[in-house]
Amino acid sequence: MNLYDAKTKPRGSLGRLEEIGMRIVEIRGHVPARLRAVVVVAAGDHGVVEEGVSAYPQEVTAQMIANFRTGGAAVNVLARAAGAEVVIADRGVGTPTRNMTRGPAMTATELERELAAGAELVDELGDVDVVALGEMGIGNSTSAAALTAAVLGVEPQRVCGRGTGVDDDGLARKVDAVRRALAANAGVDALQAFGGFELAFLGGVARRCAERAVVVLLDGYIASAAVLAAGVRDGLIAAHRSAEPGHALVLDALGLEPLLDLGLRLGEGSGAALALPLLHASIAILNEMATFDEAGVTDAGR
Amino acid sequence: MNLYDAKTKPRGSLGRLEEIGMRIVEIRGHVPARLRAVVVVAAGDHGVVEEGVSAYPQEVTAQMIANFRTGGAAVNVLARAAGAEVVIADRGVGTPTRNMTRGPAMTATELERELAAGAELVDELGDVDVVALGEMGIGNSTSAAALTAAVLGVEPQRVCGRGTGVDDDGLARKVDAVRRALAANAGVDALQAFGGFELAFLGGVARRCAERAVVVLLDGYIASAAVLAAGVRDGLIAAHRSAEPGHALVLDALGLEPLLDLGLRLGEGSGAALALPLLHASIAILNEMATFDEAGVTDAGR
Repeated sequence: MNLYDAKTKPRGSLGRLEEIGMRIVEIRGHVPARLRAVVVVAAGDHGVVEEGVSAYPQEVTAQMIANFRTGGAAVNVLARAAGAEVVIADRGVGTPTRNMTRGPAMTATELERELAAGAELVDELGDVDVVALGEMGIGNSTSAAALTAAVLGVEPQRVCGRGTGVDDDGLARKVDAVRRALAANAGVDALQAFGGFELAFLGGVARRCAERAVVVLLDGYIASAAVLAAGVRDGLIAAHRSAEPGHALVLDALGLEPLLDLGLRLGEGSGAALALPLLHASIAILNEMATFDEAGVTDAGR
Repeated sequence: MNLYDAKTKPRGSLGRLEEIGMRIVEIRGHVPARLRAVVVVAAGDHGVVEEGVSAYPQEVTAQMIANFRTGGAAVNVLARAAGAEVVIADRGVGTPTRNMTRGPAMTATELERELAAGAELVDELGDVDVVALGEMGIGNSTSAAALTAAVLGVEPQRVCGRGTGVDDDGLARKVDAVRRALAANAGVDALQAFGGFELAFLGGVARRCAERAVVVLLDGYIASAAVLAAGVRDGLIAAHRSAEPGHALVLDALGLEPLLDLGLRLGEGSGAALALPLLHASIAILNEMATFDEAGVTDAGR
C-alpha cells in the first residue's frame, strides 16, 4: 500500500519523493515522527599516493580532519543546514595503508578491526533513522576505482576519473596503479587489498546499519564503492550521481537511482547532506499533509 | 570571480550548487546573510474545464484553497520543511475565466488587473530574496499548454500532457481544446487569450521581481509557462523538471536547467519548495564554510 495515496494530491504526483518515503518506511518498519540523521565522515591515508595519483599532497587529509572538527568544511555547513549531526572518524590519518600496487593495503587483522569499529560506531549512535556515509582521504578515489574494478570485473580505465582534479598524466598514473594493484592482489578480499582504512570502516558501518534496520544514505563514488565491496545491498538510498565515471557502474550494480544530479565531486558526505532535506520532506508529507477525508477534498482517484 | 574558489574544497567540486549560488548573488547584488523565501500560490478557475480537459471537477480548486489555508496541502508541508512562508492568492476561484476555445479567457482590463495585483503582492512582501511561484487551478495545464503553443509556435500535441491524471480521451479533448483556442484567439495577447487569472497574476509577480532584483524560483510546467508568456527572462531559477512534456520546451526557451528531476507533477509550488534547501545550502556555503587561509589547508588549485 502506498501511504501517499490518501493525501490531497493526485496519485503518484510527488514522484520519487513517494518512492523514497516508502523505502524509508519499509526499512525502518514504521513512519518515523522525525528523521534523526547522522553524517559519518571517515578519514584515512593511502599508501598508493606515492604513485602520484592525486592532485593534493597527503598532508591535506590531516588538515581537513582539523577543518571538519572546527566545523568549517562543506559537509559541516551542509549537514547543519539539513539539521543533521556530523561524526568524524579518524581512521589512521597520518598512518597510511600500504601501497596497494605492491600487495594488500592492510592485513586481515586490520580489516577486521575497521569493520568492527564501524559496527561499534553505529551501536554508539543509539536510535538513529538515517546514517549518511562520507569520506575524506587523499588518494581514496584510486582505492574506490580498484574496489569497483575488482568487484565488478571491469577495466581500470572505466572506473578511474579525475578525483579532486588530477591532470592527464596523473589520470594515466592512476589507471596504471589500479592495474598493478589488481595484479598484486589476486584472491585477496577487496576491502583488505585496496583499502583504505576509512573505506573498510564505512563497510562496517553499512553492514551494522543493515542489521539494525537503519537507512544508509550513500554519498558519491567512494562511499558507494566501499558499500559495494562490503557486500551490503539492502537498506540503501543513493543521494547523488557523482561526476566520477565509475559511480554509474557502482549504482547500477546496487540497483540504485540517485536523487540528485548536480555535478558534485567533493565527497565528505556533502552530496548526502544535500539530499537529506528530500528524505525529511518525504516523511513530513506522511506526518503532516491532510488526507482527502480530513480536508473534504474530492478524490478523483477513488 | 567565483566566490566558491576560496573555500576549502577543489575548485568547482560543488558543481551546480556553485552555479546557483553565484546566480543568486548576481541577481541580488550581494551575498544574502540568509535567504528569505516566500512561496506564492495563486489559484484560479478556468472556463475551459467545460471541454472535459481535467480528471478533477472544478469544485476542487475551491476545496484546495481551503486546504492551503489550513496548512494541509503538500506545498504547506514542503514550504514549512524548507523554512519558507506561503502566501495564498485567490484569483477568482469560483469565478472562472471565459472558455478560451470561444475567444479570450479574459478582457484586456482583467489582464491588467491581474498583472498589477501580482506586482502589488511583491511590493507588500517587503525585503525578500526568493519568490517561488506556485499555482492551483483545475484546468490550468490546458492554459499552460495553450500559452506554450502560442508563444513558441509549436503543435498542441507537443505541449499537452496528462496534467493531474486525465485519461486518453481526456488528453485528446485537451489537444483539441488547445487547437480551437489557438484558432479563436489569433492576435490576442497570450496571457489574455488563454489565462487564467492566476497565471496572469504570476506573470505580474515575476515582472515585479525582475524589477526589484528578487530571485524567481519557477515550479513546474504551469508556472514556467506563465513566466514565459509574461516575457520575463532574467532572474530565474528552475526548481524541477516536470513530468509534463511541454515543460522541457519552456525550459529550453528560458535557457534554464532545473535543479531536480524527481518525476513531480503536482504543481502548487511543491517542486519549488523542494528545491529551496539547495538554494539555502548554496548561500550557507558562502557564509559559513572556511577558506583555505582560515583553515590552514594546502590549496592545490592556486
